[in-house]
Amino acid sequence: MKRTLGTCYYPEHWPREIWEEDARRMAEIGLTWVRIGEFAWKRIEPTPGTFDWAWLDDAIEVLGNAGLKVVLGTPTATPPRWMIDKHPDMIAVDAEGKPRKFGSRRHYCFSHEGYREECKRIVELVAERYGPNPHVAAWQTDNEYGCHDTVISYSDAARTAFRKWLSETFDGDITALNDAWDNVFWSMEYDSFDQIDLPNLTVTEPNPAHTLAFRRFSSDQVVNFNRAQVDIIRAHTDAPIAHNYMGRETAFDHYDVGEDLEISSWDSYPLGFLEDRAGATPEHQRKYARQGDPDFQAFHHDIYRAVGRAQGNHPQGAGRWWVMEQQPGPVNWAPYNPAPLPGMVRLWTWEAFAHGAEAVCYFRWRQAPFAQEQMHAGMLRPDSVDAPAAHEARMVMEELAATPDVQFQQAPVGLIFDFDAAFYWETQPHGAGLDYFMLVLEHYRALRRAGLSVDIIRPRPSEFEGYKAILAPGLMHMTDEVKQALADCGAEVLIGPRSGARNAHFRMPVPLPPAFPGLDVTVSRVESIRPDLPVALAGGGAVEGYLEEIEGSAETILETEAGAPVAKQAGRVTYMAGWGDAKALDRLVNMLCVRARIATVKMPEGVRCRETGSERFWFNHNTTPAETPVGILPAAGVLCETLD
Amino acid sequence: MKRTLGTCYYPEHWPREIWEEDARRMAEIGLTWVRIGEFAWKRIEPTPGTFDWAWLDDAIEVLGNAGLKVVLGTPTATPPRWMIDKHPDMIAVDAEGKPRKFGSRRHYCFSHEGYREECKRIVELVAERYGPNPHVAAWQTDNEYGCHDTVISYSDAARTAFRKWLSETFDGDITALNDAWDNVFWSMEYDSFDQIDLPNLTVTEPNPAHTLAFRRFSSDQVVNFNRAQVDIIRAHTDAPIAHNYMGRETAFDHYDVGEDLEISSWDSYPLGFLEDRAGATPEHQRKYARQGDPDFQAFHHDIYRAVGRAQGNHPQGAGRWWVMEQQPGPVNWAPYNPAPLPGMVRLWTWEAFAHGAEAVCYFRWRQAPFAQEQMHAGMLRPDSVDAPAAHEARMVMEELAATPDVQFQQAPVGLIFDFDAAFYWETQPHGAGLDYFMLVLEHYRALRRAGLSVDIIRPRPSEFEGYKAILAPGLMHMTDEVKQALADCGAEVLIGPRSGARNAHFRMPVPLPPAFPGLDVTVSRVESIRPDLPVALAGGGAVEGYLEEIEGSAETILETEAGAPVAKQAGRVTYMAGWGDAKALDRLVNMLCVRARIATVKMPEGVRCRETGSERFWFNHNTTPAETPVGILPAAGVLCETLD
Amino acid sequence: MKRTLGTCYYPEHWPREIWEEDARRMAEIGLTWVRIGEFAWKRIEPTPGTFDWAWLDDAIEVLGNAGLKVVLGTPTATPPRWMIDKHPDMIAVDAEGKPRKFGSRRHYCFSHEGYREECKRIVELVAERYGPNPHVAAWQTDNEYGCHDTVISYSDAARTAFRKWLSETFDGDITALNDAWDNVFWSMEYDSFDQIDLPNLTVTEPNPAHTLAFRRFSSDQVVNFNRAQVDIIRAHTDAPIAHNYMGRETAFDHYDVGEDLEISSWDSYPLGFLEDRAGATPEHQRKYARQGDPDFQAFHHDIYRAVGRAQGNHPQGAGRWWVMEQQPGPVNWAPYNPAPLPGMVRLWTWEAFAHGAEAVCYFRWRQAPFAQEQMHAGMLRPDSVDAPAAHEARMVMEELAATPDVQFQQAPVGLIFDFDAAFYWETQPHGAGLDYFMLVLEHYRALRRAGLSVDIIRPRPSEFEGYKAILAPGLMHMTDEVKQALADCGAEVLIGPRSGARNAHFRMPVPLPPAFPGLDVTVSRVESIRPDLPVALAGGGAVEGYLEEIEGSAETILETEAGAPVAKQAGRVTYMAGWGDAKALDRLVNMLCVRARIATVKMPEGVRCRETGSERFWFNHNTTPAETPVGILPAAGVLCETLD
Ligand SMILES: [Zn+2]
Ligand SMILES: [Zn+2]
Ligand SMILES: [Zn+2]
Repeated sequence: MKRTLGTCYYPEHWPREIWEEDARRMAEIGLTWVRIGEFAWKRIEPTPGTFDWAWLDDAIEVLGNAGLKVVLGTPTATPPRWMIDKHPDMIAVDAEGKPRKFGSRRHYCFSHEGYREECKRIVELVAERYGPNPHVAAWQTDNEYGCHDTVISYSDAARTAFRKWLSETFDGDITALNDAWDNVFWSMEYDSFDQIDLPNLTVTEPNPAHTLAFRRFSSDQVVNFNRAQVDIIRAHTDAPIAHNYMGRETAFDHYDVGEDLEISSWDSYPLGFLEDRAGATPEHQRKYARQGDPDFQAFHHDIYRAVGRAQGNHPQGAGRWWVMEQQPGPVNWAPYNPAPLPGMVRLWTWEAFAHGAEAVCYFRWRQAPFAQEQMHAGMLRPDSVDAPAAHEARMVMEELAATPDVQFQQAPVGLIFDFDAAFYWETQPHGAGLDYFMLVLEHYRALRRAGLSVDIIRPRPSEFEGYKAILAPGLMHMTDEVKQALADCGAEVLIGPRSGARNAHFRMPVPLPPAFPGLDVTVSRVESIRPDLPVALAGGGAVEGYLEEIEGSAETILETEAGAPVAKQAGRVTYMAGWGDAKALDRLVNMLCVRARIATVKMPEGVRCRETGSERFWFNHNTTPAETPVGILPAAGVLCETLD
Repeated sequence: MKRTLGTCYYPEHWPREIWEEDARRMAEIGLTWVRIGEFAWKRIEPTPGTFDWAWLDDAIEVLGNAGLKVVLGTPTATPPRWMIDKHPDMIAVDAEGKPRKFGSRRHYCFSHEGYREECKRIVELVAERYGPNPHVAAWQTDNEYGCHDTVISYSDAARTAFRKWLSETFDGDITALNDAWDNVFWSMEYDSFDQIDLPNLTVTEPNPAHTLAFRRFSSDQVVNFNRAQVDIIRAHTDAPIAHNYMGRETAFDHYDVGEDLEISSWDSYPLGFLEDRAGATPEHQRKYARQGDPDFQAFHHDIYRAVGRAQGNHPQGAGRWWVMEQQPGPVNWAPYNPAPLPGMVRLWTWEAFAHGAEAVCYFRWRQAPFAQEQMHAGMLRPDSVDAPAAHEARMVMEELAATPDVQFQQAPVGLIFDFDAAFYWETQPHGAGLDYFMLVLEHYRALRRAGLSVDIIRPRPSEFEGYKAILAPGLMHMTDEVKQALADCGAEVLIGPRSGARNAHFRMPVPLPPAFPGLDVTVSRVESIRPDLPVALAGGGAVEGYLEEIEGSAETILETEAGAPVAKQAGRVTYMAGWGDAKALDRLVNMLCVRARIATVKMPEGVRCRETGSERFWFNHNTTPAETPVGILPAAGVLCETLD
Repeated sequence: MKRTLGTCYYPEHWPREIWEEDARRMAEIGLTWVRIGEFAWKRIEPTPGTFDWAWLDDAIEVLGNAGLKVVLGTPTATPPRWMIDKHPDMIAVDAEGKPRKFGSRRHYCFSHEGYREECKRIVELVAERYGPNPHVAAWQTDNEYGCHDTVISYSDAARTAFRKWLSETFDGDITALNDAWDNVFWSMEYDSFDQIDLPNLTVTEPNPAHTLAFRRFSSDQVVNFNRAQVDIIRAHTDAPIAHNYMGRETAFDHYDVGEDLEISSWDSYPLGFLEDRAGATPEHQRKYARQGDPDFQAFHHDIYRAVGRAQGNHPQGAGRWWVMEQQPGPVNWAPYNPAPLPGMVRLWTWEAFAHGAEAVCYFRWRQAPFAQEQMHAGMLRPDSVDAPAAHEARMVMEELAATPDVQFQQAPVGLIFDFDAAFYWETQPHGAGLDYFMLVLEHYRALRRAGLSVDIIRPRPSEFEGYKAILAPGLMHMTDEVKQALADCGAEVLIGPRSGARNAHFRMPVPLPPAFPGLDVTVSRVESIRPDLPVALAGGGAVEGYLEEIEGSAETILETEAGAPVAKQAGRVTYMAGWGDAKALDRLVNMLCVRARIATVKMPEGVRCRETGSERFWFNHNTTPAETPVGILPAAGVLCETLD
């Protein structure tokens, strides 16, 4: 499959007169894909039960005739205003009990049965009409599940659905729930499922078992909502179905959604994300203000490739995924919205291909001079003049001509990222700021500083095969099966901190964690520490924010300056008992790579590389040229070595 | 008209026995004005429909007999508790949906029809009774519109009124509204005006056109509320009517209110405002903790002189205005409430006169030893001993004897300040902290650092006459008429950033802004930037927080160190494409003044001057003596040169 | 009475099979007390009106048979879920109007009559059954009144009760209330008590008299709630009754509650409190992260000894008090939860005994591996292995054998701490961060830096006898009787700032404060100052945050560098007119001690000492050894000198 480019287009935003010209220009640049329709419900169904298909038929025809392939989105992220009249209680409710009203987008609660039926109805109509359309070559369900904190809702509909979900989970046995949650604590025992409320607005924190269940329930509601659309679309077409996920969205289990979809895609906004969610220091934000974080996008690329593996039968390291929306210039929604350094749009595009993307679509074709996103750049300016992104896309198209098809190669290292583990950490972090996503990202950074390509993998035995090293930081819940498979998989394995620290309902197991086969390590005490009070390690590096006291006969390989063990090892398994800083993680990664006979290359600051099988890509995320093993890379430079 | 002093008095707070003595002491100091009555509704109408006028008759008589002139306030800012029983839904609602209850003041929603009728009723009664009273020489409507964030309300009354306002604005044509707002975006189109909600509690930001309309509506509600009172008062008296505005209040259009009033006045609290709203850095707050910001008061003086021009037919530079409440000592409501440096009350008073004030009234006569403002200093201590403000007022009275009447002289420079522009910036700042008020204030500071007197003017062609230079920063919406008038007015004109960046309904125009006659400049891209990432200019200074990419054939007069144009000029018009820091603005102001042949004098830090026509005033806002072109000024020093 | 140790145990959390073993191990360590039952309502009364006493009978029997004495808690802090079905409106409401729902603990409003009846019912049943039980040697009412901000509730029940309370306070005379509150201000006068709302959600701050009354009412509700339980328990047993108070809890008057209880106790969490409520700087938090603040616990020990004096007839300096919950290791609820430095659990225990504690109970026996507090350490790990606290408790037990009984000695210095004064400061601080608790704590620190033992005393004449010096900082309201008693008591007396600054209803008195007998000092003006703008004192030290201008003939003993008087003295009374920093307070304390002939010893940083009568204890709160007058103390060291 060729690597391809695309864009996102809203024919309903523009006069009919310019559609052909737009399509021609897209094709002229060399774009393959054009995504449309995902916010157009009101234009498709202006009033309940009356439909206007003509404009959409026309738009698809115009685009298709220009040689473009359409990705058709279901319009369920933006129900029209009349829908609220039909279902006034369909809107979500925030944690403080406030309604999340009509007037922007994503104004629905995933648990509302009435709205779910409306979605099935409109998706059925759209799929029936366009499933057979030869120009519609792929589908997208809804848009950015979870964006604007929309997974979790405290509505009446959610309460009802949560009670039902719990009753099913516990086979209608309230005593089983009380036991699993240990509700004897603080007299929290329930007499019936109907007494269980949502875990918001409690006097102090609710039972973490309660919170964890609600997070899992909320995730399942997204999965089911999406599946209902997929089932309908699939009945009418063989075209692949995608959803466009977001950055640092851990409120639902993307793997579960991914199991129902052919293609995983995500919306990559490197500059916006650096400002509003990458968790960076102000220094780091200044340094990369116009380039984005050097690892944040790659981390998501690898995560979403893993999500793309969830359905079907892919070789290790493989997975179908796209960038459905690529930042093309300044955006409108971050605290600060600078313009990318010239060359970065090209770099981001190539970086996606280097991580296995099939397609990169720029959001959006033309900057809309109106409404909420009027300050969001496009490939064209509002006056239809080419914006810088158009130029960089043209450059990529020229370069693409000489490159191979999408390809995959299993990386030497597997890094486990588990959404359910994120639920655990968010449920009870124990120390302010302790966050699973950041923990795994920091391990990812360390691997990348060592020049390694990485596969993100799920905590499933079948995923462990063939890696020289597997890192599984922070898996608070681990089944015996997963522990045994890690112990047996033949890879060097790094676990900890908090590995196996809780059971399936957030109980701490006894014997104490990690209780890992073949590893005599016990976490005897746990502490969270002020971030400005690092605990120095003998030999360099430190533990920051979180530290376990461990005991047991396994060999100590890292200890504090005061002599307390921090990492212990037995056979191929290493347990890390704290949150290592960059230096500590570099030491661990290097130790692991030596043991696993994985070759490493120390990357210069801001330089990263990745192998695809036949290529090795080098990227310079700096504003200045960088000296690398393959020569001097200019600012925003991309270099592709051909491997044999 | 003589420059006069006054105070604010609450006879209802004090035993009847001391009224005469109070009045005598006021007169002894030399005060002309005494404002009363504005919070006394409950004492005037103790129960619905029963009235007690005797005490107020008496108080006015006592004050009048002592030779004082009364400013009578309508009592509508503090409806009695029984009013809430009559109109439970009259209270405002905050953006989160919470009621803003009885128990302090300003507990009403401007849109509540029932409360509006109550206000007309009480104002009619008060005006009828005291309109003819010879001692009542001026009126004040309500008190501090907007104080405590009270302009915008999300009540049911506001929703109803907003729908009506929209329907009138769009002639009942919902399609016109959908088109104007581009509601096709995100399927936001409405089927009827009754579907439109207030723009709060949306899932993500509402359509900026929606927000802008709501801000304009909210402003209009204040204007109409005020006008209803003015119409009634005017039917009963020829005395001038004023309102006392606040500092940094941009939630309603003061010019619109001002068109209905003879006198503009404001409540000047230099130390409180420095702490809670001047937008200063901690360093600046420390430096001026006991003096107040050296420009903040002057800026408001000039703004409110412009508001005072809105009614009637004043020569350029003129406008009737007062300080209705002048800080006399420590206040009670800021985060920190220090005492003024000795001499500052005198300085503030003279500063107001230097900017054209007719009267300065100290708030309040005697410190009330009770209720919310018990820590608010007065001219007297609670035990009736003279507080420092009384001494400084006496000093001003002595000095006043030798000074001329209130006079005006058109300044060489006009600086446009437009409340509607503030609505635009607040609606969609695009970068955290970008604020129109601060932008204009920073231009004002630069002008004052160059020793210039400044007139604040409205964006209206008639206001442009006679200036050598006009600065119009940040006017996001500019009509063609205004653009043409600026191009033709003969002054050196500085516009940008964001000039003409939106149409009347917040749409970005095509051709792209600024689209200014005779100036070939186009803003091709816009970025907001972290404030800790200044973009250095060649030759000194920097752009901070906001920068536009501009193109066009106009001459580049400022550029970044990297060579990107930042300011361009053609003929007498200069476009500035970013938010300049102090150094950059000083460069622009000096450049402009040279071209416009305006003489400048570099002011020492903390020293400011202003001309009135026959006088040039110098003020030292420092805690230490300052060397100035007119000699050494002591701390808190005021010097008045007579011009010929 | 011997000094004793104990622990907190939840038999309902553990299998019946291990109870005997648990009891045996408690006894083996040497524990005397075991507190149980305070969260077990649901297990006692599984459904309304059906009871299961067997398990609790059994548990008490098992513990008693092991030689342990039971402290039995009433279970009213955690009503079962079915209670909410019976009384849906019993839950509290927060200041924003949001319900504080079931799902954790303390989910009740103190004002709800229905819930009060339920509490009386269950307490009657528990007291009737276990009052006669010989193993139940003490009682605890409810648990941690006020924890999680639960004193103040804005529920309908609270509103109704507040109106009743006000009506009773003002003998049903609404005019008396209007006069006392000076409601003439801002037309706030009420026509009837039924018009008075709770002082939340007002447009700007409510009348401070309103707020103060609501705080006093809320405090009284706690007192009455507690008294109802006490009256019932007392009818069935002679065992002493305690309540376990919290750290830095000033929302109710603990003295008032204490008047009904034999024993005052508190829950001491030195590390948690340092992070979340000690008001420390980050530097201080880093320095003492694993030791806790060196004065915070001692301050509470002395406060709660004073609360323990409130009932009965104790000699000066005496008072019955316990630590009911002592932190044994990392806790779960602070922003950061580090492990104590080895030795600190022992130090904390001895520190309590040094301040007169009868008993110290560790919370909790075994770490619960489930629910909200699963990360809260115990004396045992979840796997029943001894945790460090068990070892340190054993060490204390061995040391206790050789020490005398609990004893008291009146300290040379009395420091007044008054909860009602805290209500005043919180009602209107006038400057951000000005806090009565911190003011008194900082005086306490200064006394302790001088090596002094301190008695906390109430502002009551009978408490003033026998002290060489009395400090009474910040008593905003002082009756004439208290003033006269302080003037006459023979001690050196330090008052100010704000002494007597308000009357009983928050009115500022005239003549102006302090109006202290024999002291010609008048506060003529008051200012609050940015904390980063200290006012330097001549001779060293500074005033920070708050400064009064004072006048009068009393001798000036401290003045600013600019020469303004800051402290004045006449006879034995000194008035301090500002918030002194550490240096200034040290100067004042030393001056006072010289005049009062109190010997002082300058303590090294982090070292503290206290005398009990026959012993002088020294404590080293540092992580490193400290040189002291009694030799070098190791980190976390405790030394006990025997006095003769
Ligand atoms: Zn179908
Ligand atoms: Zn009339
Ligand atoms: Zn009884």
